[in-house]
Amino acid sequence: MSTVDGSQVESTRILTRTRLFPFPNLGMASLYKHLRVHQIFGANTDVGKTILTTALSRASAAKKFPVFYLKPVSTGALDDADDRHVTRFGGKASKLIHAECLFQYDEPVSPHLAARLKDEGRVEVPSDEIFIKSVAQRIRDHARKSGKAAHMYVETAGGVHSPALSGTTQIDCYRPLFLPIVLIGDSRLGGISSTISAYDSLVLRGYIVDAVIIFRDEYYRNWEYLTEYFKERGVHVSVVEPPPPRHSDPTEDAKATEAYYESVVSPDIVNGVSNIVDYLDVRHAVRVQDIESMPQRTLDTIWWPFVQHGTVKDPKDVTVIDSAYGDFFSATRLNNERDSSKSILFPELDGSASWWTQTLGHAHPSLTMAAARASGRYGHVMFPQATHIPALRLAERLVHKGPGKGWASRAFFSDNGSTGMEVALKMAMRAYTQRNGAGLDNESKKRLGVLGLKGSYHGDTIGAMDACEEGVYTCEWHDAKGYWFEPPSVGFKDGKPIITVPSSLSTTEKAHTVPAKSLSWIYDVEDRLHTPLARAYALYVSRALESIEKRGQKLGALVIEPLLMGAGGMIFVDPLFQRVLIDTVRGRRSGKSTEWSGMPVIFDEVFVGLNRIGMESTGPLLGVNPDISVNAKVLTGGLIPLCVTLASKSIFNAFLSDKKAEALLHGHSYTAHPIGCEVANETLAQIDKLEKSEEWTAAKGKWDKLQGEGERSKVWSLWDPQFVSEVSKLPKVKEVMSLGCVLAINFEDDAAGYTSSFAQNALQSLKEPSPEAGMSAAPGGAPYGVHYRTLGNVAYFMTSLNTKASVIRSIEDKIWSTIGN
Amino acid sequence: MSTVDGSQVESTRILTRTRLFPFPNLGMASLYKHLRVHQIFGANTDVGKTILTTALSRASAAKKFPVFYLKPVSTGALDDADDRHVTRFGGKASKLIHAECLFQYDEPVSPHLAARLKDEGRVEVPSDEIFIKSVAQRIRDHARKSGKAAHMYVETAGGVHSPALSGTTQIDCYRPLFLPIVLIGDSRLGGISSTISAYDSLVLRGYIVDAVIIFRDEYYRNWEYLTEYFKERGVHVSVVEPPPPRHSDPTEDAKATEAYYESVVSPDIVNGVSNIVDYLDVRHAVRVQDIESMPQRTLDTIWWPFVQHGTVKDPKDVTVIDSAYGDFFSATRLNNERDSSKSILFPELDGSASWWTQTLGHAHPSLTMAAARASGRYGHVMFPQATHIPALRLAERLVHKGPGKGWASRAFFSDNGSTGMEVALKMAMRAYTQRNGAGLDNESKKRLGVLGLKGSYHGDTIGAMDACEEGVYTCEWHDAKGYWFEPPSVGFKDGKPIITVPSSLSTTEKAHTVPAKSLSWIYDVEDRLHTPLARAYALYVSRALESIEKRGQKLGALVIEPLLMGAGGMIFVDPLFQRVLIDTVRGRRSGKSTEWSGMPVIFDEVFVGLNRIGMESTGPLLGVNPDISVNAKVLTGGLIPLCVTLASKSIFNAFLSDKKAEALLHGHSYTAHPIGCEVANETLAQIDKLEKSEEWTAAKGKWDKLQGEGERSKVWSLWDPQFVSEVSKLPKVKEVMSLGCVLAINFEDDAAGYTSSFAQNALQSLKEPSPEAGMSAAPGGAPYGVHYRTLGNVAYFMTSLNTKASVIRSIEDKIWSTIGN
Repeated sequence: MSTVDGSQVESTRILTRTRLFPFPNLGMASLYKHLRVHQIFGANTDVGKTILTTALSRASAAKKFPVFYLKPVSTGALDDADDRHVTRFGGKASKLIHAECLFQYDEPVSPHLAARLKDEGRVEVPSDEIFIKSVAQRIRDHARKSGKAAHMYVETAGGVHSPALSGTTQIDCYRPLFLPIVLIGDSRLGGISSTISAYDSLVLRGYIVDAVIIFRDEYYRNWEYLTEYFKERGVHVSVVEPPPPRHSDPTEDAKATEAYYESVVSPDIVNGVSNIVDYLDVRHAVRVQDIESMPQRTLDTIWWPFVQHGTVKDPKDVTVIDSAYGDFFSATRLNNERDSSKSILFPELDGSASWWTQTLGHAHPSLTMAAARASGRYGHVMFPQATHIPALRLAERLVHKGPGKGWASRAFFSDNGSTGMEVALKMAMRAYTQRNGAGLDNESKKRLGVLGLKGSYHGDTIGAMDACEEGVYTCEWHDAKGYWFEPPSVGFKDGKPIITVPSSLSTTEKAHTVPAKSLSWIYDVEDRLHTPLARAYALYVSRALESIEKRGQKLGALVIEPLLMGAGGMIFVDPLFQRVLIDTVRGRRSGKSTEWSGMPVIFDEVFVGLNRIGMESTGPLLGVNPDISVNAKVLTGGLIPLCVTLASKSIFNAFLSDKKAEALLHGHSYTAHPIGCEVANETLAQIDKLEKSEEWTAAKGKWDKLQGEGERSKVWSLWDPQFVSEVSKLPKVKEVMSLGCVLAINFEDDAAGYTSSFAQNALQSLKEPSPEAGMSAAPGGAPYGVHYRTLGNVAYFMTSLNTKASVIRSIEDKIWSTIGN
Repeated sequence: MSTVDGSQVESTRILTRTRLFPFPNLGMASLYKHLRVHQIFGANTDVGKTILTTALSRASAAKKFPVFYLKPVSTGALDDADDRHVTRFGGKASKLIHAECLFQYDEPVSPHLAARLKDEGRVEVPSDEIFIKSVAQRIRDHARKSGKAAHMYVETAGGVHSPALSGTTQIDCYRPLFLPIVLIGDSRLGGISSTISAYDSLVLRGYIVDAVIIFRDEYYRNWEYLTEYFKERGVHVSVVEPPPPRHSDPTEDAKATEAYYESVVSPDIVNGVSNIVDYLDVRHAVRVQDIESMPQRTLDTIWWPFVQHGTVKDPKDVTVIDSAYGDFFSATRLNNERDSSKSILFPELDGSASWWTQTLGHAHPSLTMAAARASGRYGHVMFPQATHIPALRLAERLVHKGPGKGWASRAFFSDNGSTGMEVALKMAMRAYTQRNGAGLDNESKKRLGVLGLKGSYHGDTIGAMDACEEGVYTCEWHDAKGYWFEPPSVGFKDGKPIITVPSSLSTTEKAHTVPAKSLSWIYDVEDRLHTPLARAYALYVSRALESIEKRGQKLGALVIEPLLMGAGGMIFVDPLFQRVLIDTVRGRRSGKSTEWSGMPVIFDEVFVGLNRIGMESTGPLLGVNPDISVNAKVLTGGLIPLCVTLASKSIFNAFLSDKKAEALLHGHSYTAHPIGCEVANETLAQIDKLEKSEEWTAAKGKWDKLQGEGERSKVWSLWDPQFVSEVSKLPKVKEVMSLGCVLAINFEDDAAGYTSSFAQNALQSLKEPSPEAGMSAAPGGAPYGVHYRTLGNVAYFMTSLNTKASVIRSIEDKIWSTIGN
């Protein structure tokens, strides 16, 4: 590739790894105040991308802006038709334009094929990660070089979905950069369709489409139709005169082409390329202004959940999330001292998995497609006495093959974990009063309590709150009904797994710890059922129940978060205690029976279920099944609210009669909304794939190694056992524990509890992107900050189910360098 | 168009309206057991649609199936390249193939242009409605004609988004028919991209894509890439040999073409067209089987809300909703006597607007695009102390320009109306106890009540239930806290608007009715403030409050559904009573103050808000604003759950402090999920357009006419005032009332109340599609049933905000013919 004045521009072939390091300061979604960058996508191949990108570059240069024209990949045929154009940075402006190509192939085929054909496949094809980092590097370089306002155009190859070098289609491959788009429309026959479809594809990936540019073809007049079509959708369409036909005489051709460019970029032409450049500048400025104004506007109008607005008043305390991809937000916070040569946006690890919802990474295309498919087919449809495929398929999956396998009979849909727990409580209480109704008057039914554990949390609606002790999460109407045991818990201390038995349960009346031979042994519930501790648990529970009965308090349901209580402080409960509790409550019931006994048992698996802690459901590990269970959060892959409450036949039967008023009179308008159900089905299918993935096998292998030769660990985590062990040895750390995606660090703090800010302070420096040696694990390789949440003196970190090992190792390093000394 | 044996097939030019009538029995989404229909879309123009549709037709015929090959629209150029192919129904099989074209144009341009160019625009271009009905008619004709198994292929023109005759792109135009799709891929350079983008577009409209067929091009090898790509997405790809190059000698060419078809349709070729036909048969059979098995499977696994499963046990009682479009489901119920020549699916009017959610019709493309855009950009992201454009824009719209205008300061997000009401109650109770805390111990705070109206309903979570009286909607933990007034109500009786004053409020101690000069006058609250009735209301309310105070009952909030109480029985409350109630509770507070006084006032506008009853919010009509209000349902246009609770500054301030535990500790994981917020923003933008629409102007005009010359009615409805008036004269009807989208018919019934099945029985026959003279108002023109819900002795009907007048008139006719005699 050369400029018209003959000087060679860099034409880099396959870049080696060494040439790409280091990336001291790249943005994931790069956004610079002074450097406006647009990515040029084509509605198809041969629609004039190169011609129009050249025209845009020349128009920018004519306005005295330095221009960077980057064509990351070029293949022979893709450019053949445009050869005479790409070199036309003629005239006075040419010196302002710097053109570059990163990967060039001579074969006139799609980039992924070209890359494979290259040197008969002997050259390694760069991965998406490397490729994106190389593009990000160029953007950063240019942002640094141009001290003043500048423009950059990144031209893609072929159509939006043409495969990139790795084979991923470009639209997905470039997505981490999240550059705003100029779409070059197709002016030929069929071009209306291909232009709109390309736009559809861009929308499905969340891109900002700033403008559509199309040649004026007076025969097909696609521009006419498309201008109207996109106007309705708020997208600006610019119409540009097509280039002259090719002249047989090269000199004449060069002259004609030059004249063409001179004419289309002329500022005198209304709606010409010069105007488009101005328009793109405005869009860029508006976006930057929007981002800068958002913190204050948010403080003015938004009322956040769980935030004390009295202490969050500074716009600098507000994180603007401009987009998200994989495990990372592309975010910013106002910072007066910010170096203007740096990207406004930086990658921030979503360290709480967006309040425990994120499952497969943000903006996962297959979940977006599932949402679109259901929205396009149904929207929402009425559910009572009706059925639709997404809901039925999901119900069947959960009841027969998922967490309900072996015990559940029915699926009831609601909108979130809290409402699903209210449904569960209504089910349990009705079943209980129906069987024990003789002794219960109306007032007693209202006062019926639950049996649970201290530290439980089941949601923020009053009914769900009433199943938990009063504590910090409270409000005027919260009226806790029940009895809650202080539970023994599991964790690592000084590199060893221990069980902490609370004072209430201890013979010495002080809390004490019990060392365990291994973590896996702690979770081998069947094996431990005959230990002295099991007998102590059973005795303790029986006595408490007797004393409750003596007091005359009626309890109608046992409600637990199995294995891990989340919002209560990431408490990993000794599974043996929960097993003994259930067995004791149920008394003797035949092993295979699914008839509830004693009182209905509810598993709140909203947080722990569907593999968040490394298992689909907790029943198999505990060796007992619930009568009712609740799944949400992971259920929809981190996209939208949906909840399913599963129930056994014996619970369902409690509502059967011939009277309408005796039915379960609970139903939200959007019950079983098809979008949620379809997204859930897709999520579960993706999780099935992960079950067989190398990443999971490798992570499980590390935990197996803690066991004897050839033995499998009962539990596992995506976090490294060695790391967990080392952190547990730190003096400021009280305990550490990890299962599945969850890592919880319990700090030593006298003022423990929800209102403690110890953990928050201890990890403060994780928030800011810190420079790393070499490139970071974030897409684009920029230094990244960590967005984490704490629960008093407990800091926790939660990955997606598919977070890559390299990202997790990187977080472990960051945590270690923050607290490891 | 002619077959190869020279016989002319029908080549209909612009069909006139008369030729299209009547449509006695068309399906909306047609699905026949014996007739398999597939629609053929192309990834672009000139990709081989006609060749492959011809091959499919010949392969079907070779298997002895009668084949109907329908090309609804044909334009010159689109077919030029395929001329030699479309005529090749040669050989023995030809007699089984019937080919037809409905609209043929010679101009080689896009159909919408061709239609406009035709006879210099003198011929009327058929509307989408007429066009779709003409296609539906052909499908029905063929289904009837072919007594046995048959195949039909409907070939489209150009690419998926090529404009149809009306200018709507084909993908949207054909959507009401919801035919399963065969997508012809593009084997040329750039074809990977155009094929995937076309698929994206089809998914966005919810289409079932049964297969992709693509020519084997050994140079670009798109088939190789696409086979893998679509396999991951569960879509079958078939690769077919391309046709031979055109021979200069016509005889040779015909011979070569014939040989080509013979070879590709041969059953001996593995993965050839013959196999595709078998595969499509399987897909069709599976779909039919799925639909037939769904009712029983649903009865086996689903637990419905508000349904007594003890009385719904027959699979015939389950409605399968296969897809939905506009105001209609495409649905079916098992019916042993069904005529097999009729479509399995029939249109069913969504008469409850899918439990009051449906706003712009099912599967509205702009809402799907909004959902896709946000999903692609963010997925869900963490909200506390963070912000993103969709949430901030929605909050600003609602607080400053929407229902919060003039009084609200903040927006708090939750997941549905019920949770949003719990948030509202938590806000109000805290504000109340904070100001009046001195006299309240912990137990009193738990018992703090609300002031409300009998018949209120605020959702199914316990907190929302506790703000309502105990009644039918009850459960074990429901513990109603408060005092509820019996409200005066508004309706039409014997053609005249009346106010019904309940016995508790009546001087005669019996309920009595007050005639009104007009409906508009009833809603002229300011005008009525000085009437004797207003004074009577005020006296009644004051006395009740005094008596409550004497009893020592503490009330912390006034909670009302303004103007219309939905779930309680569609009770249209006299607005004057609500105004007086609010004024009395607030006592003297300066007109402009937004400081709450007396007790915080909550407007539950979940159902009535955002134009469901013809106004964005009820404050302006009532002449008073709330301190807290709640919006949901319409908010997201009938797509997914989302709720916003708005609050005034004085409410917000009650939570401000330096203590985290005093913040509003309520937050769902998916708080302010970007998809919901973006869909809400799009919904509100669409409603803004409707505000200026001809349909609304016309409907309002009818209600204005009830007033004096030039006067505007204070209220209006999409339902015809004349119809409302006539129904109110029927002897079996107690009262009728209508506002906005809502029509409520209150039947005379001694056993009134939720458990009454009077209304359900009175309208039973509406459910089944009844034959109409001519075509129906449903897309495709088939007879349609009405899916309606009742609340005891009240039947209600609810349209979308954009339901067409023609559809509403048609429903009115149906209702009239059911109960009007």
